[in-house]
Amino acid sequence: MNLPKKVDIREVCLRDGLQIETPIPLAAKIELLEAIVATGVREIEATAFVSPSKVPALADAAELAAELYRFPDVEFSALVASANGAHRAVAAGLRSLEYVVSASDAHSRANVGRDTAEATAAIADVARIAHDGDATVEVIIATAWDCPFDGPTPPARVLDIVTAATELGVDRIAIADTIGTTTPRRVGALVAQVQPLIGDIPLGAHFHNTRGAGLASAYAAVQAGVTRLDAAVGGLGGCPFAPGASGNIATEDLVYLLRDSDVDVDVDLDRAIAAAKVAQDAVGHQLPSALLRAGDRILA
Amino acid sequence: MNLPKKVDIREVCLRDGLQIETPIPLAAKIELLEAIVATGVREIEATAFVSPSKVPALADAAELAAELYRFPDVEFSALVASANGAHRAVAAGLRSLEYVVSASDAHSRANVGRDTAEATAAIADVARIAHDGDATVEVIIATAWDCPFDGPTPPARVLDIVTAATELGVDRIAIADTIGTTTPRRVGALVAQVQPLIGDIPLGAHFHNTRGAGLASAYAAVQAGVTRLDAAVGGLGGCPFAPGASGNIATEDLVYLLRDSDVDVDVDLDRAIAAAKVAQDAVGHQLPSALLRAGDRILA
Repeated sequence: MNLPKKVDIREVCLRDGLQIETPIPLAAKIELLEAIVATGVREIEATAFVSPSKVPALADAAELAAELYRFPDVEFSALVASANGAHRAVAAGLRSLEYVVSASDAHSRANVGRDTAEATAAIADVARIAHDGDATVEVIIATAWDCPFDGPTPPARVLDIVTAATELGVDRIAIADTIGTTTPRRVGALVAQVQPLIGDIPLGAHFHNTRGAGLASAYAAVQAGVTRLDAAVGGLGGCPFAPGASGNIATEDLVYLLRDSDVDVDVDLDRAIAAAKVAQDAVGHQLPSALLRAGDRILA
Repeated sequence: MNLPKKVDIREVCLRDGLQIETPIPLAAKIELLEAIVATGVREIEATAFVSPSKVPALADAAELAAELYRFPDVEFSALVASANGAHRAVAAGLRSLEYVVSASDAHSRANVGRDTAEATAAIADVARIAHDGDATVEVIIATAWDCPFDGPTPPARVLDIVTAATELGVDRIAIADTIGTTTPRRVGALVAQVQPLIGDIPLGAHFHNTRGAGLASAYAAVQAGVTRLDAAVGGLGGCPFAPGASGNIATEDLVYLLRDSDVDVDVDLDRAIAAAKVAQDAVGHQLPSALLRAGDRILA
């Protein structure tokens, strides 16, 4: 197996993890942020600049952004869903934007009120706003394998977004298993189709563990050459369209798997477990992380 | 990736799944057995002939065995830990025995009061009893990757058991991740070392999801050429040495992953989910299965 020497983990607990939770106080987010920074992770998705009424858990985006200067060694990103959100993110000091385009029309309409073509066309505006604001922009392709309404996403729909994003000069691209349905073979197949289109643009992947295969899919992505993965301490997160489902792949579970695959990561396992505990206490319910319950194995 | 056309799943919910649960009535086991048989699975680990005082949940082994004639299309197996257990299993009508040898001395002593060498030496007796009783015998190598007491298991200890089992004419061999610590790369490495030693003897693998990597490990085993996997509906099961940990890989989660990998199995996914629900009701607490909560994806 060809495994890369290193994988870059982006910690998404504060955004994707918290977004469907009951809002927690800013002070609790800062405590969680400090625990996450202590893991050694170099990239953190801090929040989203979206509608506060639709996502009340992230309504404090600007207030949280104002605290990020305290952690100068971390690259903080924020998710945006429109040019307006991009303006707000840049104004709040973010220098790394994520712009989501759903590859399925039904999910795109449910999520942002526009179809895939309209959301794809807006990449140009978001990229311009980001670059004018000295920020980078990553296009995250949601529902890259399956849509909760339309079922399987034809790969061509993903590749069309990839091509558009590449032509419009985005800095990174990621494919996201938004509802946690994909499996290793499908991951490898899609990555193999995306890679020839993107040249030197870094490709990331984002998995949920909703059907138990999140780590298996992440490993398949790494085997296929992906070196950027999203994860959330505790496995926090969920999907509004899959009640009761597990959330993001848990950072500590991913770190455990990669460490035992001789793949380097910046994240310390014990500190990731400690951060997962902070996340669990912050939201007040049990999180699905395996390592949080079982702990590390005996190493020698 | 070289994936086999088909993988044979052995359903272990009734033995490995139930063994550390509060004992449930025989009638509830029969109801669960009927739900499991309805999934289409061809091999079921029905029970264990071990000390009733140590494993009270399986104290009804002979009574359960007396009901198995009703399902003539299924191969039922029973776990044994000694020659005495093998005699009891054969006398109860079982024609497929599993004999466990722990690859670590500490686990072997804790489990059966003998070290690995002593348990390995007893393969000869168990195999003779099985074969004299017109039964097959599978040697399952427990703690094949890690021991809860000794830490990492040197692969040579596993290979020594494999060699002994092969020379003693066992019918099948399996490697078991008893405490749920292994990961894909370690799985591939061990399978690659075992395979050259066993000739035509079928090799199986057994995984727990204790650290979230159970399905990833199972997929790695299949990629490495393993075509026999154990799984339990609902993900029932646990380990007395890892409280709170997840159990066996869930049959329905495995079936989902293999189906979407174009690997055939005998198990129907919807019926496996239904059987998981029966298992959950039988034990009276939530099971860790992902599909039981999230259901299948939209297929088209």
